[in-house]
Order: sequence, then C-alpha cells, then structure tokens
Amino acid sequence: MDLQRRERFEGVRAWPEDSAGGLMDADALSVRADVTLYVVQRYLRRYRRRAGEMPEHTDSLMVVDSGNRYLGVLPLAEVVARPQSTTVAEVMNRRVEAIEAFTPARRVARLFEDHDWLSAPVVDSEGQLIGRITVDDVVDVIREEADRTIMSRAGLDEDMDMFAPVMTSAMRRSVWLGVNLVNALIAAWVIGLFEASIAERVALAVLMPVVASMGGVAGTQSLTLVTRGIALDQVTRANSRRLLAIELGVGLVNGLFWALIVAGVATVWFGDWMLGLVFGLAMVINVGNGTLSGTLVPLVLRRLGIDPALAGGVLLVALTDVVGFAVFLGLATIWLLG
Amino acid sequence: MDLQRRERFEGVRAWPEDSAGGLMDADALSVRADVTLYVVQRYLRRYRRRAGEMPEHTDSLMVVDSGNRYLGVLPLAEVVARPQSTTVAEVMNRRVEAIEAFTPARRVARLFEDHDWLSAPVVDSEGQLIGRITVDDVVDVIREEADRTIMSRAGLDEDMDMFAPVMTSAMRRSVWLGVNLVNALIAAWVIGLFEASIAERVALAVLMPVVASMGGVAGTQSLTLVTRGIALDQVTRANSRRLLAIELGVGLVNGLFWALIVAGVATVWFGDWMLGLVFGLAMVINVGNGTLSGTLVPLVLRRLGIDPALAGGVLLVALTDVVGFAVFLGLATIWLLG
Repeated sequence: MDLQRRERFEGVRAWPEDSAGGLMDADALSVRADVTLYVVQRYLRRYRRRAGEMPEHTDSLMVVDSGNRYLGVLPLAEVVARPQSTTVAEVMNRRVEAIEAFTPARRVARLFEDHDWLSAPVVDSEGQLIGRITVDDVVDVIREEADRTIMSRAGLDEDMDMFAPVMTSAMRRSVWLGVNLVNALIAAWVIGLFEASIAERVALAVLMPVVASMGGVAGTQSLTLVTRGIALDQVTRANSRRLLAIELGVGLVNGLFWALIVAGVATVWFGDWMLGLVFGLAMVINVGNGTLSGTLVPLVLRRLGIDPALAGGVLLVALTDVVGFAVFLGLATIWLLG
Repeated sequence: MDLQRRERFEGVRAWPEDSAGGLMDADALSVRADVTLYVVQRYLRRYRRRAGEMPEHTDSLMVVDSGNRYLGVLPLAEVVARPQSTTVAEVMNRRVEAIEAFTPARRVARLFEDHDWLSAPVVDSEGQLIGRITVDDVVDVIREEADRTIMSRAGLDEDMDMFAPVMTSAMRRSVWLGVNLVNALIAAWVIGLFEASIAERVALAVLMPVVASMGGVAGTQSLTLVTRGIALDQVTRANSRRLLAIELGVGLVNGLFWALIVAGVATVWFGDWMLGLVFGLAMVINVGNGTLSGTLVPLVLRRLGIDPALAGGVLLVALTDVVGFAVFLGLATIWLLG
C-alpha cells in the first residue's frame, strides 16, 4: 500500500506541469462500488486515525472496480445523508467523466467551469484512477491564463513585479519596445517612399496617422474577439470562413460610415473635396484591412502554434500601419498629384 | 421553518448582484456546536428524506449558535471520518471567517483564491448566517472579471457574439471607433499646427509616427502593470508615489537607450545629425511621458471611480500621440528651422 502510494507520487512528477496530470493530487480516496456506506464510513474512520487527517478538500470519494478502473464519484453528502445499508453503486454519480492525465490544463479548467465540479478524477490511458484535481487548483489556472493574456498583450511576463528595481524592469520591458521600433521604422520607410507627395501637399502628413490609427483600432476589436473565440474553442475550421466574412462585413460597414464623416471633415478643413474623397476611401480600405487582418492573424498564428496574445497585436499594428500609410499616400499620389 | 426559509430567499434578492449577498445560495445547512456527529448525521438523513436531495455542492455544514450567529465550518470529511460521539465544537474549523453580505464579488473571489475554499459562509451585519457561497460561482466571477478586462480594452462588451449579424456587430463596435477618431483628429490638428515646418523638412513627417508609437507602447506597458496592480489591491495611496518614480525611471532608461539607437538611424538615413538629435530627444521625452501617463491615468481614473480597463487605453494614446507629435515637431521647428 505504501509502495503503491509512492509509485503514484512518482507518477505525478512525470506529467507536464500544464496538464491534468500536473495539476492533480495523488491522494484520491477510492472505494469499491459493491460495498455499503457503513463500510465506507468505517474505512474512512480507519484512514483518518492512521493518517491523522483527511486529504485536503475531500468533498467526494472516487469509486473504482477491482482493477482500480474509475467508475464514478461518491459525494460525501450522500455518504452522510443516506441510510448506512445503501451500497455505493446505488448512490454514486456515474455522469462525472474522468479526465485523461495528458489533457491540457486549459481544457481541464473549461471542464470544471462547464460542469461546476468541486473535484474530478484523473485516469491514465488505461482508465485506471491515478489521482484527482480539486477546484482550487483550477482557479489558479484560470487566473493565470487570464493574467498571461492581459500581460502578454503588452509584452510583459505575468510574474513581473511592479516594484522591482528600475534597471531590472527597464531591461525586461525593453525587448518589446525594440520589436515595436522595428515595426514603426518599417512604417516610416513606407512614408518615406512618398516624401515628394508630402512635400507637395502637407495635408497628407496631417491626415495619414488617422487612417493608420482607425485601421488599428478596428483590427484590435476583431483580434480580441477572435483570440477569445479561439481560447474558448468556439472557432473551428468549419466556421472560420463564416467568421472572416462577418468581420469583413463589419469592417466595410463601419469603414464606410466613418469614411463619410472623415471625408466631410477633411473637405471642410482643407477646402478640397478630392482630398476628402481620397481620405475616405483610404479609411474604408484600412478599416476593412484591420478587421480582416485582426481575424486572419490569430487564425494563422494558431495554425503555426504561436500564442496570438503575444504576437498578434504587433503583427496587426504592422499591417494596419503599413497598409494605412501606403493606401492613403498612394491614392493621393495618383489622384491628387498625378 | 418554512417561513424562515422564505425570508432568507427574499433576502437574497435584496443584495446587489456583484456582492457576496448576490452570489450566495440561501440553502446553507447549519448545525449547532454542542451536538454530536451522530446527531448531525441523523439530522442530515432526515433532511435528505424530506427534501429529496442534498443542496448542491455541499462539502461542509455551517455551525451556528442558538441565535443563528455564525461560529465555524464543519467539513463533511470530518463528519464521516470522526467517531460518532465527537461533538461539532471539537472538530469544526473556526478559522474560516464569514463574508459580510455587502462584500464586493471581486473581493470574494480574492478571498476564495487566497484561502483555497470550496465554500464559505455569508453573514449579515449582525453576524447572523444568511447563506453560503460555493466556489463554482466564484469561478464564474473570476472568468467574467478577466473577460471584461480583456474585452473592454478593445471597447467590446463581454457578451458580444462573434457570429451576431453584421449590422448588429457593426453598430456595437462603432462607438469605440468614433471615440478613437476624435482622438486621432486631435492628434491630426496638432500636426496641422506645424504644416509649415513639415513642408520645409518632409523627413519630419516620416519620423513623427515613430515618436508617437514608441510613447504609446511604453505607456501601455505601464498602464497594464498598474491597472493589474490596482485590481490586485497592490497599489495603495502610500506606495503610488514610489510606483510613479519607478515608472518614470524605467521610461527614462528605456527612452534613452532606444533614443540613442533611433538618433543613429535617423542621422544615417537623412544624413543630418541635428535631425537625429531632435528625434532622439523627442523619443526620450515621449517614452517618459508614456510611462508617466500610463501610471497616472489608471490612478486618476480609479480616484474618479471610472474603470481604467475601458477608458485607460484611449486616454493614454491621446496623451502619447499629442505629446509625441507636439514635442518632436516643436523641437524641430525651433532647432532645425528657427
């Protein structure tokens, strides 16, 4: 028995940290299905006397067959509230499906959320009970997952300390600034291609950041929605084409709406309706580009196995900046100055 | 007894949805401290026979005195594993502090996380037991809180449906684009003040988005860290001055580092070391402005009772865009063209 326990503990170490096996405790108390609740209580009293205390967060026992194969869950609430002559098989809950040890932690969290479990059994590939996961560990997974998403969007590690020494913080954040600098310099290079046009018509320099920024904002909305959809397993290969069509539609509707307004603003501001037209058209194109890129970027990153929360924003801004500047300055060069 | 139960249910409705009272169930099973576990089990069996089933997620019972005042928690694991003659008082856990009904849901979630509770008692202002909160409801709070933070940064509601009709989605997202358009137009107006300078030196138009964007990126890092710190109750009035000093330090270190590099790039690119100098100086100032604004904006918004996750990003970008353009173009006008 002691040897068996030790083997179980060894087992725990072998699973990846972010899997069901890594999350589980090996201290699951298990009983057979054919015994009575009287026998179960006698067993528990004996266990407690020997061990000194019950395993933490024991709200239920696991029911197994003679080969330690998982059968169901026996809530302690049933043990205390049912007649002692009842058998385990009569009251155990067979609907709680066991979690396979290699199941990713994120999916374990989703299972707990969907089923409102307090604890759940973990089995190996043969269906043998090897441990249990309790909801308190799942809570940590959920919190860390959310934290990582929020932090990595700003290029931060989730364990960053606000009150760390200045030099430590500066160095850890610096890489992200460097990545974004490369981005910004590429956009600057695109603008540089149109220096002659800007020299001839300075209004272009005034309006071009508006086109880039609106594309970025529209794209960030799509990126956020699609990234969340991927995390919640709502985006499949089957519906991603439909998703793309919807996002493109949203981009065109909102692009057109705001394009009309900004075209009017630019026409009045600079007294030039052709400039207004070019501005509006570039806006439609870049807002559409934003929603399209915001949808495609996380889909492609997922296919490549890269976390969209970290790299998604950078790629998106690169795309909406470059396209925004190029389309606006390009159209202006052809139509206004050609 | 039936009347008492109904009163309890009425009570539940009276609490704000996002408070402990709003989260709790009124079906907490309570026992007296002076009875034996034998009596407890008899009571539970009778309860189950009458009610047909036990309250969901019952991992423990609440212990109260004769005036229904909360005393402690009795885990079912103790009820089943201790000798029947033991009294409740001997085995109950007095360390679980009751949650006051008006406690905000967010703080309830933090308490559950910190103490790894599966359930916890809720009391009214007189310390009377009025219900219990189970961890499955807390999991929902944590998930929603994280979701709201991520979504509201992109101006999205957390209940937005990816597959809603195009017009519905377009309208719900449009407001955010409008807010950001106002932002972008203000920045454009600032650029417009320097039209003459740009006409004289087009390189300014090429480089100015780099200054604005780097300030925004540095600021977003500070904003993300400080907003999270506020949510985790790590930012107090006492340490916010120190936080501000650290962030300003990080901004200056990283600003100086990247300024040296971009100054070199601009000098080589445009063959003008004075332009490089102005570019680098503007970069230091705007990256410093970014970290300072990224720290101050959430602190001020919190003071005003506004959610920093929603309004923080917009305000920050407005500040880093306006300051970035104004400082770079202003310095250039004075030093390069004066």
